[in-house]
Amino acid sequence: MSDTGVTVKKSNNFSEWYVEVVLKSGLADYAPIKGCMIFKPQSYAIWEKIQEVFNKKIKSTGHQNVYFPMFIPESFLKKEAEHFEGFVPEVAWVTQGGETVLDEKLAIRPTSETIIYSAFAKWVRSWRDLPIKINQWCNIVRWETKATKPFLRTREFLWQEGHTVHKTSEEAKKEVFEILDEYKDIMEKYLAIPVLIGVKTDNEKFAGALYTTTLEAIMPDGKALQMGTSHNLGQNFAKVFNIEYIGEDKQNHRVWQTSWGISTRLIGALVMVHGDDRGLVVPPRVASIQVVIVPITYKKGDSSAILEKCKEVYEKLEKNNISVVLDDRKEYTPGWKFHEWELKGVPIRIEIGPRDLKQNQITLARRDTFQKTNAKIEDATEAVKLLLDEIQDNLYLTAKEKLIEKTTIVNNFEDFKTTLKTKGGFLKASWCGNPDCEEKIKAETGATIRLKPFVTELTTNKCILCNETPGEIVYFARSY
Amino acid sequence: MSDTGVTVKKSNNFSEWYVEVVLKSGLADYAPIKGCMIFKPQSYAIWEKIQEVFNKKIKSTGHQNVYFPMFIPESFLKKEAEHFEGFVPEVAWVTQGGETVLDEKLAIRPTSETIIYSAFAKWVRSWRDLPIKINQWCNIVRWETKATKPFLRTREFLWQEGHTVHKTSEEAKKEVFEILDEYKDIMEKYLAIPVLIGVKTDNEKFAGALYTTTLEAIMPDGKALQMGTSHNLGQNFAKVFNIEYIGEDKQNHRVWQTSWGISTRLIGALVMVHGDDRGLVVPPRVASIQVVIVPITYKKGDSSAILEKCKEVYEKLEKNNISVVLDDRKEYTPGWKFHEWELKGVPIRIEIGPRDLKQNQITLARRDTFQKTNAKIEDATEAVKLLLDEIQDNLYLTAKEKLIEKTTIVNNFEDFKTTLKTKGGFLKASWCGNPDCEEKIKAETGATIRLKPFVTELTTNKCILCNETPGEIVYFARSY
Repeated sequence: MSDTGVTVKKSNNFSEWYVEVVLKSGLADYAPIKGCMIFKPQSYAIWEKIQEVFNKKIKSTGHQNVYFPMFIPESFLKKEAEHFEGFVPEVAWVTQGGETVLDEKLAIRPTSETIIYSAFAKWVRSWRDLPIKINQWCNIVRWETKATKPFLRTREFLWQEGHTVHKTSEEAKKEVFEILDEYKDIMEKYLAIPVLIGVKTDNEKFAGALYTTTLEAIMPDGKALQMGTSHNLGQNFAKVFNIEYIGEDKQNHRVWQTSWGISTRLIGALVMVHGDDRGLVVPPRVASIQVVIVPITYKKGDSSAILEKCKEVYEKLEKNNISVVLDDRKEYTPGWKFHEWELKGVPIRIEIGPRDLKQNQITLARRDTFQKTNAKIEDATEAVKLLLDEIQDNLYLTAKEKLIEKTTIVNNFEDFKTTLKTKGGFLKASWCGNPDCEEKIKAETGATIRLKPFVTELTTNKCILCNETPGEIVYFARSY
Repeated sequence: MSDTGVTVKKSNNFSEWYVEVVLKSGLADYAPIKGCMIFKPQSYAIWEKIQEVFNKKIKSTGHQNVYFPMFIPESFLKKEAEHFEGFVPEVAWVTQGGETVLDEKLAIRPTSETIIYSAFAKWVRSWRDLPIKINQWCNIVRWETKATKPFLRTREFLWQEGHTVHKTSEEAKKEVFEILDEYKDIMEKYLAIPVLIGVKTDNEKFAGALYTTTLEAIMPDGKALQMGTSHNLGQNFAKVFNIEYIGEDKQNHRVWQTSWGISTRLIGALVMVHGDDRGLVVPPRVASIQVVIVPITYKKGDSSAILEKCKEVYEKLEKNNISVVLDDRKEYTPGWKFHEWELKGVPIRIEIGPRDLKQNQITLARRDTFQKTNAKIEDATEAVKLLLDEIQDNLYLTAKEKLIEKTTIVNNFEDFKTTLKTKGGFLKASWCGNPDCEEKIKAETGATIRLKPFVTELTTNKCILCNETPGEIVYFARSY
């Protein structure tokens, strides 16, 4: 493995390519604890962008950020039976504090419903206290036994989890779908990753939820990635944690709840969807560096005029809120720098060399298509802004085409298995609604139902497996 | 204890007053895990302000945010002996993942030097890789055995920890003091809390550091609070983690390091220093709500004109980036609202009643002094901005006066003990430099040396304890 460049082709060995890009672009590093990773500046900056965008959205709709303890007493987790069963196999336990063995072992949060809802039970008294709409950004621990992979499956990761309490079922439902919309917006408009939205089957829903809505993307290897979920919890937790309010009618009422989350897994999706054989490609709207300026100078001859012009362009762009770096390091050649910034996925490279100087122009190189264009120095800001938008759009549209290309309608189980093997992707197929069929398909093919579309597509076709009852069209895929 | 208001006077029982303000103002709540707390929206918003200000500062000086795993293998902690000894008594241990007992137990980070520096050892190769200047915002766990108190001492808290690597000792030293300056700025200009700065004695320094610089404030009960620390680690960790670079001279060199942190403890300081018998007082620059508008309406009569005027002022202020809330809730009286917003510490309350309406004016009530003034509607923005600045300044100056008032020069040990007992605060006294004297004073009085001033004040006075050798002037205090 070369020390600097990506040596594996994306089309040859996707999995190895992914790991190389993640490590070599400076996104992440392995940690000396099995299944854990280090978020280096490059990836944490993307996470901060996501935080900035999402915080703005949810605060404008009355949500507030909070922080709850990461320790959850075992007894709390146990209160909602389905929830407990879903999470306990992968809980990390603290059993010792200092020299003392703890009386009750403490779970490190695999998610925070139980600890947060025990507080809600105290805080909610009257209809005046509702709604409560809170969110926290925090670390989460799930002791994975499967093979781990940076961003996609690690024992510790970062996420946000929103938790809301409402007076009515309608209000809770509205919240679930509003958040789903916000998530879709972040994924498609910022990360440039098209997603399908829908609802999970009972088998696949969040442990303890009434139903789970989901956003699913397709990766270049044909596997689906769950990008985020927004759960309608109904009154399941309200019941076991006893969360009730006195209404305007002076009667006791049980509350309705939602919870929802997106995680640093989104960074993994960004790598897989947009990256190429030269490394990372970061969509302009989440790029901490949008433009890098590389002076094309030669060892011989005076380069001060070029450097000055670079500085002029740098200042112009910076003044216009474009995030720009001037790479005037003397110890590296222009070619070496091109290579490094391409690896890191910076959307636009600006070159200024002797010819550009003479013609009072800059050369713009796109990271996504490698096309080069020129612009007059005085038009630099406008040209960069237009090009950033064009790159953002192009990344999204390219991914959208691939999503369409990777979605196949299959009418019988043989086709289902063949398509899964040869092409992967989403398989639209008829399912009778019986969990047994769902489980058998999973056992035989590894594919699960990723979602049921919100608008039910009924079909006269029989269930893809049992071939008996006609069903509804759902999306199957193998997944991360 | 009344359900809503603060019932204990700050001057009567400071400790109980503190807890009441913290709980009733909505800053925090107890958690169902011993020694842990819940950061409610009101306090988390202050933390977000601190994050915003500090992120801006450190990013402008080339620092980058990252995230490292919170699990630290026992063997890592053990590498630096002094460090290990300092932290291990209060480490929480994860011993079980899922159903499996772990081979090596994992510490939950009490601080991250060891895990981060094991990565630095991999990342640093050449002089080109330096400096590295990173920071992380994260949760920290220290299994306190002493009585815990919200924000001031809890088993889990939030902080930022900066970690830098430099080529030279001079560079590291510069970093330590630049960060100290940034901290001072946040504490004095944003939190309005004056601090003394200086260096810790060897007894009191960070376990593993060459020296520790510190920022110390005095609380109304006469106890000092360590507000933040910036450590010069010298080459201690570089040595045990083997962090070396090849210089431009082609030789191997050991690096120089710093680390530094501030925590959510600052929120506790803010409560103690500025709060009063009516509750919290939040300095305008860190207040998530700077102004609340309360319409003075009566059950009888039409209040639509007043409400309209309130809305007009609300929109005007919001447009001018003042964080404002219009409290038009119908279910509460103006008096009830006054009480609630005072408890929450909002810097300015604007009242608009029938008389204000007639005179086309607003009434402004200051949270810090309770003074009321009027301003013409058209001057509202300007008046609010001026008043916010005035409140910010006044809070700082009032605290500064108290700091001066609570600093006493003592010339003999009897005075020392009497002053400590009757008045508390900082005691400026001569110390010979012998750790034995320092420890004996601590054992007898509970006071420790909070700092040695940067500009050494030598004295002809003999050491306050041994009365033998003349020493230097240091600051003693009892502390949190």
